[in-house]
Amino acid sequence: MLRKVRIVGSGLIGTSIGLGLVQQGIAVEMVDSDSFAQALAEDLTGGVVVADPELVVFALPTSALSQVIKSEIAINPQSTFMDVGSVKSEVVLQIETFPGLSTRFLPTHPMAGREIGGAGSARADLFQGRSWILTPEANCAPESKNLVLDLISSLGATPIELSARDHDAAVAKISHLPQIAASLVAKQLTGTPAEWMELAGQGLRDTTRIAGSDEKLWKEIIYSNRSEISELLISLQNDLTQMIAALDDPAKIAELIAAGREGKAMIPGKHGGKAREYSYLPIVIDDKPGQLGAIFNECAAMEVNVEDLNIEHSPGQQSALITLSLSALDAEKLSAHLTSIGWNVHPVRK
Amino acid sequence: MLRKVRIVGSGLIGTSIGLGLVQQGIAVEMVDSDSFAQALAEDLTGGVVVADPELVVFALPTSALSQVIKSEIAINPQSTFMDVGSVKSEVVLQIETFPGLSTRFLPTHPMAGREIGGAGSARADLFQGRSWILTPEANCAPESKNLVLDLISSLGATPIELSARDHDAAVAKISHLPQIAASLVAKQLTGTPAEWMELAGQGLRDTTRIAGSDEKLWKEIIYSNRSEISELLISLQNDLTQMIAALDDPAKIAELIAAGREGKAMIPGKHGGKAREYSYLPIVIDDKPGQLGAIFNECAAMEVNVEDLNIEHSPGQQSALITLSLSALDAEKLSAHLTSIGWNVHPVRK
Repeated sequence: MLRKVRIVGSGLIGTSIGLGLVQQGIAVEMVDSDSFAQALAEDLTGGVVVADPELVVFALPTSALSQVIKSEIAINPQSTFMDVGSVKSEVVLQIETFPGLSTRFLPTHPMAGREIGGAGSARADLFQGRSWILTPEANCAPESKNLVLDLISSLGATPIELSARDHDAAVAKISHLPQIAASLVAKQLTGTPAEWMELAGQGLRDTTRIAGSDEKLWKEIIYSNRSEISELLISLQNDLTQMIAALDDPAKIAELIAAGREGKAMIPGKHGGKAREYSYLPIVIDDKPGQLGAIFNECAAMEVNVEDLNIEHSPGQQSALITLSLSALDAEKLSAHLTSIGWNVHPVRK
Repeated sequence: MLRKVRIVGSGLIGTSIGLGLVQQGIAVEMVDSDSFAQALAEDLTGGVVVADPELVVFALPTSALSQVIKSEIAINPQSTFMDVGSVKSEVVLQIETFPGLSTRFLPTHPMAGREIGGAGSARADLFQGRSWILTPEANCAPESKNLVLDLISSLGATPIELSARDHDAAVAKISHLPQIAASLVAKQLTGTPAEWMELAGQGLRDTTRIAGSDEKLWKEIIYSNRSEISELLISLQNDLTQMIAALDDPAKIAELIAAGREGKAMIPGKHGGKAREYSYLPIVIDDKPGQLGAIFNECAAMEVNVEDLNIEHSPGQQSALITLSLSALDAEKLSAHLTSIGWNVHPVRK
């Protein structure tokens, strides 16, 4: 049973872990090299000092890890260690420089985060329902692993075991590649006349949303996973070269766009598991308080479950277009009901 | 005053124009080379035949335009013509092959669309509150331009005048480049193990959302605007080459990611005009009918205007995280109110 945890690093992830554990009645000590961050994290979590923690969590940049491991081994010679960095092979290499450490050091990666960093953005529920990847080495001690599994389930996350190498290849593809692509596409916008930018639609907004990310965090991640990322960027570059060569050949352009659609179909639905097909129900509403509430009350009355919602405001107009994502059955039911009571519903005809 | 319009092309855009004009009491004839599409569009719009239309709208692929202009000039020698294609310089070239036509042919581009094509997806309100670009030539007749402006305002859209060349450069940047990037990033996902794809988060989903687009439409658009696009793709490729070279140099990686963030800041807010900063209010709710309705009722009671909403379901859990986008003032007001009546609100600490 997990009772005492020391968390080294009081940023978003470390402090969120602290908050979540404290809620479960676990004693948590927050530490940071930045005294301001440590003070804030202590305020938020209760600020106790724990002796002989069972588990020490490293929630800090991988580049700072080696130094911190050294000092923590000295003061906590019996503790289990874990880190929460976004890249794992490099952590494994660092662990291997400390003889015997791999039996009690678990590299992990919680698949959660926010666009805003720092202890001030921390949330006890940050990991609720998220995946938390472990990449233990073969000689990892079972009792160490159980402590880490205990922490993960205390925070409401689901543990998934992968090899460090598979983890790094997976996140390179599903996280690091999209980040770099979004940043480089957004970079092309620099210097564009404002009146052109006014024409931007949802496509550009979605494609570049994560380009707003913090470069201090991302330089670490990308650098640490450079060998996996390099392969992917070269493959992207080859496809880009093909597209440039294909610009005079509509059939070849179509082939590349179609290949993209096939790749996109690999992404599962929001609930995890198999990709789910939603039906979309567009409704034009007056852009005033009360309209959304009224619609959701009708959803509740009809026992319809809204999977997602998009709101599109028409600039300079008093109307908004909301689009509900529903199961096909719910969409049909709700569409008929809302139409019958006078809502401006625009079901997509089959 | 616009009274009689002939629409050649009964796809999404043509039929949506037809539906919108019919709602305004304007007589609309729908035409298509595909008799099934034409029949559907006629059913939807009322299906009349108009003699001597003031305005003929070409809502068909630019590659088919030249042929159709020829036959339409023959049967409607007095009419004003307009097209609605996504690329304009090529249309101008085609117009110039018909002597005198540029005085009464207006190249236009409505900034509206849907991910689903065809007459069946058409909506009378597709253009409400959208921008509609005109790229008239210098010798365009004022009466012709007024007919087109009449159509645009009848459909609730806002006309914007640009040169054909500026238009094409603008859409290459804000629409065609993101489409190609999204498709090529999505293409890299092909063959990824399903258990890796399970780890995909919102970043990958957003970055590749438009990769689901139709390749038949996009091969036309990309091919027609290839000279503008080519320049942008080469610039993107240069930056990609720089990023690959920078993988061993964290400072250089940070520079590229920061440049992306600066580019992204060029994108104005949803309402048009200057970019707006929203405050985000995360609320954890039970994932059951009635919860969203109850929250929106509170928003209405507090006279709080919800700008956007994101719903995140926790896989395998009975809770969902909803994040409301609000003005800073509304966020503060609503957060205090919801907390006071027992909602599980997680305001972002400043």
